[in-house]
Order: sequence, then structure tokens, then C-alpha cells
Amino acid sequence: MTTTQNRSNNVRSQPISNDHHPLVRRLHALQTREGREQAGLFFIDGVRFVAQAVANGAAIETLIVSPQRLVNPLGRKLARTLPQQGVPCHTLTPDLYDRLSRAEEPQGVAAIVRQQWHTLDTIRPGRRLCWIAAEAIASSGNLGTILRTSEAVGGAGLILLGDAVDPYDPVVVRSTMGALFAQQMVRTTLAEFAVWKRRRQFTLVGTSLTADLDYHAVAYPKPVVLLMGSERKGLSEEAQALCDLRVKIPMVGRCDSLNVGIATSVMLYELFNQRRAEGR
Amino acid sequence: MTTTQNRSNNVRSQPISNDHHPLVRRLHALQTREGREQAGLFFIDGVRFVAQAVANGAAIETLIVSPQRLVNPLGRKLARTLPQQGVPCHTLTPDLYDRLSRAEEPQGVAAIVRQQWHTLDTIRPGRRLCWIAAEAIASSGNLGTILRTSEAVGGAGLILLGDAVDPYDPVVVRSTMGALFAQQMVRTTLAEFAVWKRRRQFTLVGTSLTADLDYHAVAYPKPVVLLMGSERKGLSEEAQALCDLRVKIPMVGRCDSLNVGIATSVMLYELFNQRRAEGR
Repeated sequence: MTTTQNRSNNVRSQPISNDHHPLVRRLHALQTREGREQAGLFFIDGVRFVAQAVANGAAIETLIVSPQRLVNPLGRKLARTLPQQGVPCHTLTPDLYDRLSRAEEPQGVAAIVRQQWHTLDTIRPGRRLCWIAAEAIASSGNLGTILRTSEAVGGAGLILLGDAVDPYDPVVVRSTMGALFAQQMVRTTLAEFAVWKRRRQFTLVGTSLTADLDYHAVAYPKPVVLLMGSERKGLSEEAQALCDLRVKIPMVGRCDSLNVGIATSVMLYELFNQRRAEGR
Repeated sequence: MTTTQNRSNNVRSQPISNDHHPLVRRLHALQTREGREQAGLFFIDGVRFVAQAVANGAAIETLIVSPQRLVNPLGRKLARTLPQQGVPCHTLTPDLYDRLSRAEEPQGVAAIVRQQWHTLDTIRPGRRLCWIAAEAIASSGNLGTILRTSEAVGGAGLILLGDAVDPYDPVVVRSTMGALFAQQMVRTTLAEFAVWKRRRQFTLVGTSLTADLDYHAVAYPKPVVLLMGSERKGLSEEAQALCDLRVKIPMVGRCDSLNVGIATSVMLYELFNQRRAEGR
């Protein structure tokens, strides 16, 4: 019997209850960015996330179930069908599962999934609504929200420029509500992005508080890549210099800036509404 | 010498270094919702927040400074002028200040500020862009972001219906980036809101995934109150029944909903853009 077969049959053997089991140690390692990057893996928890991973063809490395917590019918189906398809499966006692889950109501199904990164060479700016390139996103919640809204409007994905939070951080994963699996992600530098920009045909649209153009008064040529700045500093001067169009989202009142997730989403819905109007 | 004079002169006396000082115990109490609600006060930290509180006429109960951390010129000015205007002031050692501040780079100026709540009877729906009524907002970040975007578009404020996170929670306060002081807030129930709705003339616009109307295809009559549902459940049936207009924000892709802060902001910018177009 091979190791894989052995693992896939674990679903019927004694559930793991011990905090020192190698699987538990692996899961703890995936709580840190370093651990995730070394393994090229991440952890997802809950029916919605496992179902979205499967629906988007994500590479599920290990399924983790706790039968006593499996009350959701879709969760039960995933726990039954994935091992049948050869996905290695471990069962955990409810106590251990609850300790490992960050969910308020643990649903008894989780997975270790392979990270998927794309490179600039393999992506095409024109295939979906737009791409979003973002400089130095520091907030997990903002990154997750941007991926979620990008998926909602039919955006292709996110190009992370320079230092950014890890999109496979559990907080990001949860806040994407599953969009993480449908969106493509690239990690690169501003310098490499600038080289790519010269070789490809697209309109790079940057938002800036100092731009003259109103974001709502511009007809955006296809294809578009949106360029968003960091939460604290906005777009760097080097990034602004790359832009074909610099637009501002107008504000009144005493606010001097918008949250970067909000600004990105307002831009995304503007693009989405323009494309919908063109399609009518 | 009265207590107030005594306190206001504290700026020149020995800085507080002791974790058991009554001020430190008061600040710890303000870390909890219960402590904040009992005292009717909250804590703000940093030049931006203290300056915004002053600019919006917030009632500053106590100023807290740590002279060695005061490198920002505006922070120094606040620390000098507020005590001159009779605001009680305490000085803290940098060590103690750093322990109390949640900022990455403590700026040496903080304050205890009086909470300000309005009632439905005293607010007018028509005076600014719109009001936002929200059912059961559970996320501090979402609440803060909604207040920040409302301020950016000239919204009046937020009507919290039923159980919601405390807008004076430090996480909310920080994520509003100062908009908290400019926005008005009401805390009430859906039942009282329904009574108020019958007595006032405004269009109540609810967003719902099951609505037929596209949010971008509607000309919104003035004045508008937006009604937003909770993160997990959307608008309750009772809340939907109150609405004059139910609209949906369209989505494609595998996403089945937007973050409530994003949905609110997309609605706010739609209203804002329509009013700007009317003003042209």
C-alpha cells in the first residue's frame, strides 16, 4: 500500500486527536507567512472555501474532516467525494478540529491547498474587465476586499508590486469569501512591471489625489490595468510616471482620502458600468 | 485651586510613569465597550485624530501628551494651545505613553473625548447627500470605512439599527481616519426607525441581492436614506418591507455578495455622481 492510499483511507481509521501529530504541526506552520511560502501551501476552513477551491480547480493537497462537525449537506458531499477522487484525507476529533479552526461555528471540513502564482509573461491584460496592480498593500482586509470586488465585476486578478501582505494569509483568504480561487495573482516589482508595460498594449490608469481628471468623466479605452497606491502613501512617483491616465475620485467634507479597498472598488464599478453601457 | 486648574497645570509637573495611576486605569476602562458606554467617553490617539476632534468641535475631556514623542509641529501646537483654552492635560513618560498607544509610531498626543449621539427626532434627512441606516453591522472595519466614505461624499451620518459594533471602538475610530467627528450618529431600533420613516418625507433605498432594479439605472429622488443589511444576512424582511426602492448592485463571476462597506460605498458614489451631474 502506498502512502497516498494509506492517507486516503485514513477517513475510516481512528481520528487524530493529538496536538503533536505531524498534520497538526504542518497546519501550525501554515499559520505563518514563512511557513506558507516555504511549503507553497495554505490552509482553508469551511464549506464555502473548500467548495470554491474545488469549483475553481485549485490543487487540494489534503482534505481535513471532522465527521461530528459535518452538518452542512455540501460539506458532507465534499468529505465523501474528494477522497473518492484520490485526495488524501485526514479525520480529526471535534475537539482538535475546533482548536485548529478560526471559524465561530466550525463546519468540519478544511483543506491544505497549493498556492498558485502567475507571472507577467503568462497573463493577458485584455481578456476580462481589467487587471489591478497594487503597490505595497499592507492591510489583509483591504487585499481580501479588492480580490472579492474584482471577482464581482469580472476582473482578472491582482498584480502585487513590491512588499505586500500575503494573499494566502488566513485573514485575506476569509475576506475574499472564495474569490481568491477565481482571481489570478502575480507577484513582481515595479521595475519588472514597467518593462512589461512597455511590451504590452493597455491603458494604465492610476488614481491619485493630485490628478486633474475626474474618474467619472473619463471614457476608459480597453484594455485597462488599474494602478492603486498603498494605504499610507498612495501611488509612488515612479508608479505615477508609468500611468497613461491619472484620475482622482472626488471628495468633499473633511476626509482627505478613501480606504484603498473602497477607492479600488469605486474605480472597478465605474469601469464595469461603462462596459455594461457599451454592451447595451 | 480647583481640580481642573490643578489638572491643567499638570503639563508642567512630573510626568505620569506609573501603570496604577488613576488616569491609566481610566484609559484601560475605555478599552472595553462597557467602560466606554458607562463613561460616555472614548480614547483617541495621534495628531490626526486630536486635530480632527478639535476641528469638529468635539468635547475633549482630557488631553494626554508625552513631550518627548511630540515631533509633529501640529501635535506640538495642539499640546500647547488646548491647555491654554482650559482643557485638562496630563503628561506621560514616553515609556508609559508607548504602552498605552496602539500606534506603530506614537505621536505623543492623545485625548479622552465625550461620545456624541443624536436622536432621530433631531436629524433631518434632506440636509446633506444622504443618511445611511445600517442593520446589525458586526465588523469594526466595515463600520469605520462606511463613516469614512460617507464623509468623503458629503453624507450626513449613520443610523445604527439594533445590535451593532460600537463606533467608538478604537478599531472603528482609527479606520474612520477622523470622519467619526464630522459624521452624526444615531442608535435606534428598526421599529423606531419605521415610525420615523412614516413621519418624514424621504426615499428609503435598500440594497438587496434579490432586487430587480439595477442601482445604476435608477434616478434617486431627494432626499435619500440608504438602508444597508448586515454582513452575514443582508437586509431583514422587515427592513426590506420599509423600502421605497429596492436595488441591486450587479455582480458577475463566482462572487455571491460584496463586502457591506464596499456595497455602501458603491451606492454612495452613485448618489454623489448623480447629484454632481444635476448640479452641472
